[in-house]
Amino acid sequence: MEIVSRNKCYGGMQTVYKHASDACGVEMTFGMYLPPQAQTKSVPVLWYLSGLTCNHENAMTKSGMQQHAAKYGMALVFPDTSPRGDDVADDEAYDLGNGAGFYVNATQEPWKPHFQMYDYIVKELRMKLQESQPVTDRHGITGHSMGGHGALTIALRNPKLFNSVSAFAPITNPTQSNWGRKQFSAYLGDDEATWAEYDATILLGELGWHGDILIDQGSSDQFIDLLRPQSLTKIIYEHRQPAILRMQDGYDHSYFFVSTFAGDHIRWHSERLNGLDS
Amino acid sequence: MEIVSRNKCYGGMQTVYKHASDACGVEMTFGMYLPPQAQTKSVPVLWYLSGLTCNHENAMTKSGMQQHAAKYGMALVFPDTSPRGDDVADDEAYDLGNGAGFYVNATQEPWKPHFQMYDYIVKELRMKLQESQPVTDRHGITGHSMGGHGALTIALRNPKLFNSVSAFAPITNPTQSNWGRKQFSAYLGDDEATWAEYDATILLGELGWHGDILIDQGSSDQFIDLLRPQSLTKIIYEHRQPAILRMQDGYDHSYFFVSTFAGDHIRWHSERLNGLDS
Repeated sequence: MEIVSRNKCYGGMQTVYKHASDACGVEMTFGMYLPPQAQTKSVPVLWYLSGLTCNHENAMTKSGMQQHAAKYGMALVFPDTSPRGDDVADDEAYDLGNGAGFYVNATQEPWKPHFQMYDYIVKELRMKLQESQPVTDRHGITGHSMGGHGALTIALRNPKLFNSVSAFAPITNPTQSNWGRKQFSAYLGDDEATWAEYDATILLGELGWHGDILIDQGSSDQFIDLLRPQSLTKIIYEHRQPAILRMQDGYDHSYFFVSTFAGDHIRWHSERLNGLDS
Repeated sequence: MEIVSRNKCYGGMQTVYKHASDACGVEMTFGMYLPPQAQTKSVPVLWYLSGLTCNHENAMTKSGMQQHAAKYGMALVFPDTSPRGDDVADDEAYDLGNGAGFYVNATQEPWKPHFQMYDYIVKELRMKLQESQPVTDRHGITGHSMGGHGALTIALRNPKLFNSVSAFAPITNPTQSNWGRKQFSAYLGDDEATWAEYDATILLGELGWHGDILIDQGSSDQFIDLLRPQSLTKIIYEHRQPAILRMQDGYDHSYFFVSTFAGDHIRWHSERLNGLDS
């Protein structure tokens, strides 16, 4: 892994790495924050998956999460949202291709060769961190919007790898939303049966989840009709799924919303990753 | 008002009063906790409405709420759940008559002469407290089960009288539940149109609410099918109603559940009644 930048931050270190990715077949970039506690011991990890149009940098610079990670002794990982490069397929739309990987393994051309973001996160990058960084095997995952979708679907399908999951204004039901149907059709093809494994509402109904789930949603979110929070909420109540669901008055879809509640999420993950809930 | 008992508690005073009620036409009993702060100034009030089979005493002795009220400087009021006495109609069932007033104004015989719990709470007892106790005009309301139903419906219909509302495992949609249909039929008659003003789900859809709402529900609640938390949740999401909805893992319907989260609710009301949210 090549170091792109290193900045001391809240007593810890914010690093950006580049590395050749087997899963995506191109060079990938990610951000990694190690809190002060990591200088003397291994710490739990919280993954933060970003939303449409973002890269590894948005949350790293705008969410203010490092201050909370330093307080609670957690590492943060900020992956990119898609493969990128001259050889990587793209689309003119903001919501397909670059910055719009949707955390799936594409099965359709021209996306298939590089858009393997699910495997990249779950297998490759996770293994890489485990081997190279002072982190424990207690991992939590969160994300915003498309990244909230990624966090929920990756956690639900990998309950042994992820001990806690939360989300900020997640896309909850992409098979029924225009943030989902277009992309799944492109990346996964027209057989909608193959889409289900990337739909948090369907997955939660089928698989359940071993812990509780924290989800914040702004009541003034301009994209709420695309996010469909009511779909996941319905399953949570039908299945009596332990959860904390907060409809936050007047917040929109921006990072001003994410940063406001980032501290709550990191404390919540910390309680679960440090075993206080077990 | 006649003092039935007085006990010093967490530096404050837990009193039980008896008084002749105009609304109910009989003597009514209620508990009142004044925190230490009330010795030198007026304090906000949190109403706690109890559930089926309870009287003024259950929460007063089992919820542990006084410790939190003392910490946050709030008065607590614990009304009875129905009129009682030799002249008051009753039924053999636990869920009609004594201990089962459902916080409605009965329009049907034999209940009409005494079962006027809505007016008793909203008009008579509120006025009595305002005149006789060191309390401000900032009132919050909460309750458990049937009392959660009471808290929600009373708050939603009186947004100028109540500044904050929360509930523990409330009956949310009594017009569609066997905890509701039987009683409304008895107290209000067969015209279901008259039931709507006592149904939190219908009221929230029609009236909205000026603040956020905190609701805790245990995932192992043995009565959850009667409470129908999913009904109110659906309206909350459809209307983007600010709210905190917590499905609490493994908790049942008992006071062990209520006492576990009583501190959270009192802190939450305190933040809103003391104006931190405005």
